[in-house]
Amino acid sequence: MRILVLGGDGYLGWPTALHLSECGHQVAVADSFARRHYDDELGVESLVPIEPLRARIAAWRELTGEQIGAYVGDLTDAMFTYRIIGEFRPQAVVHFAEQRAAPYSMIDRAHAVYTQANNVIGTLNLLYAIAETDPGIHLVKLGTMGEYGTPNIDIEEGWLEVEHNGRRDRVLYPKRPGSFYHLSKVHDSHNIEFACRVWGLAATDLNQGVVYGQQTGQTARDERLATRFDYDAVFGTVLNRFVIQAVIGHPLTVYGSGGQTRGFIDIRDTVRCIQLACEHPAARGEFRVFNQMTESFSVRELAAAVAAAYPGDVVIENLDNPRVEAPEHYYNVVHTGLAGLGLQPHLLSDTLIESMFDITKRYAHRVRPEALRPTVNWRTPTTT
Amino acid sequence: MRILVLGGDGYLGWPTALHLSECGHQVAVADSFARRHYDDELGVESLVPIEPLRARIAAWRELTGEQIGAYVGDLTDAMFTYRIIGEFRPQAVVHFAEQRAAPYSMIDRAHAVYTQANNVIGTLNLLYAIAETDPGIHLVKLGTMGEYGTPNIDIEEGWLEVEHNGRRDRVLYPKRPGSFYHLSKVHDSHNIEFACRVWGLAATDLNQGVVYGQQTGQTARDERLATRFDYDAVFGTVLNRFVIQAVIGHPLTVYGSGGQTRGFIDIRDTVRCIQLACEHPAARGEFRVFNQMTESFSVRELAAAVAAAYPGDVVIENLDNPRVEAPEHYYNVVHTGLAGLGLQPHLLSDTLIESMFDITKRYAHRVRPEALRPTVNWRTPTTT
Repeated sequence: MRILVLGGDGYLGWPTALHLSECGHQVAVADSFARRHYDDELGVESLVPIEPLRARIAAWRELTGEQIGAYVGDLTDAMFTYRIIGEFRPQAVVHFAEQRAAPYSMIDRAHAVYTQANNVIGTLNLLYAIAETDPGIHLVKLGTMGEYGTPNIDIEEGWLEVEHNGRRDRVLYPKRPGSFYHLSKVHDSHNIEFACRVWGLAATDLNQGVVYGQQTGQTARDERLATRFDYDAVFGTVLNRFVIQAVIGHPLTVYGSGGQTRGFIDIRDTVRCIQLACEHPAARGEFRVFNQMTESFSVRELAAAVAAAYPGDVVIENLDNPRVEAPEHYYNVVHTGLAGLGLQPHLLSDTLIESMFDITKRYAHRVRPEALRPTVNWRTPTTT
Repeated sequence: MRILVLGGDGYLGWPTALHLSECGHQVAVADSFARRHYDDELGVESLVPIEPLRARIAAWRELTGEQIGAYVGDLTDAMFTYRIIGEFRPQAVVHFAEQRAAPYSMIDRAHAVYTQANNVIGTLNLLYAIAETDPGIHLVKLGTMGEYGTPNIDIEEGWLEVEHNGRRDRVLYPKRPGSFYHLSKVHDSHNIEFACRVWGLAATDLNQGVVYGQQTGQTARDERLATRFDYDAVFGTVLNRFVIQAVIGHPLTVYGSGGQTRGFIDIRDTVRCIQLACEHPAARGEFRVFNQMTESFSVRELAAAVAAAYPGDVVIENLDNPRVEAPEHYYNVVHTGLAGLGLQPHLLSDTLIESMFDITKRYAHRVRPEALRPTVNWRTPTTT
């Protein structure tokens, strides 16, 4: 298949492009390098050094003979978006190309507006480009489990069968997320469902859990293929950050009591899920939603798991929670769709955590400890 | 009370400002004149001539001695939004300042992006300006009944009590609207609910039905106080358009079979609802939703009512529906919140329709018949 990976220079976009290429698909990536720019802005960088996109692509070609195409531009530039769809003529478009950090969206008004405008407008442009170029192109869109929030009922896959006052309907699952970033993905989901309804587009919305891990079968082959590994309090997701904190002797920073429970997924399962979604497309007119996660953990459980796995001393520090979220809550997620397509999950084990210790030790000298503690507070609206 | 009416030069914003002023409130309006600009763009104008904002305000002062303040600027300009909140220091902000036509948002990609960016970013700026200036300012936001779409269950007021697999929760009512415009209001609602949750803002989201009528007690006092009356297929809402079509001898343009049912409200009730919402504010942290409508009708019923009321011959023409919407469906809406605050609805009667005939006859020479038929098709995505 011809597959275009938007955001193909990022933490997950790049390993996804390699995985799809190795599976025999013809792959191109598009990226604006926004993610590298956020590093410059925040004064941090990936723990593991990463090569420029052209060098990564050249290394992959050298190792495998496979060519990955590259487009540089931004989806909010409609001309660019129409051009890449029209030139590459993909059968599937995998859309990672959004600002993806909740704390970044909560820095201040400007970052909230940037996040929603960037994500929503980029996706609108993409929907129009697909609808006008070829409505048969399957859109595989990265959403987030955070779209749902933490309802007191089971979280279904995007749709909910409701009975109310003796009548029944199948409705979009109600969303009540916890940041302007997560809200941008809720907005996208509503826009995409509408595009499926009015233009007959085929879309899969992947509500992904928190991803952990840094290596896939492909990226591990050569240092030049490494993907980014973030540890800072803005872009570093919780398990990756705990591993790095353990290695450098920094307390594991648990927000509040750590009773917040979330869905998680191994990076190796992410790339496999996207392959499965592409190879088993949604039907024309279908808005299909999968919950792309394999296990649920509380933050407290993750901290304990990292502390137990690490051979040295680990201190767990409970900080005042900078976010507004339920400290303890019900959390039960249906995630049978991708399993039904053949996903065999990698569950979190000491082995995985230990392999992350090794990577981290090698690059521990690159950690900027001042970036580990949260500086963005949900309760404090800020102008600029 | 000090009340700031955003979009206070528009079809409903202007009569609302007058009504609140007459009720003894201290009122200022803000407007970017975007609505007058859409007229220029589309080559149409209000059937009833309207005065410039400054002239309207001067006429109101001449007649009543009351001063209405005026700010000219755009909510997407954050500096402007912060300035008006900081200078006027309102106790309530009534927010009409959005692009409000579904067909306009469906013209092409550029208009879809404009509508969502304009509405969502303007409201985000407003939320931050309120949160930083004084989180006690009550936000009264105009949403639309179209946010809900046409579910097969009763439409509650913004929230839904759900039982699922033996567990219960109160969730945001699931939304599945029918245009990029309606979606922009869904996005706003989600963003506002979040702001209430994290910053303790007090908000009332008014999901308003289709408004009909052109005069209120205040605007009828003097020609210079008239509000706009739109008949074109982009901005003219259905009942107003039918009245004008009847008067000029044009067929009433029913889209499809006319089985689409919607909630409606008289313009005199709109201004009263907003007064009631302002005078009975939401609590801090509360996201309160009212369904601001008084009766439901199918399009077919409205056409028949206009035909029956008009003293001459009326032809009803069923056009291919340019929109994507259910031709026949269940529609039952709870709208007890505003009635509970004291709303005494004006129900649709021949008297109201007949008064609209009189206004229309007076200005029938201004109608541009070429603007009456729909030109925007939901099924045809267009680039520019």
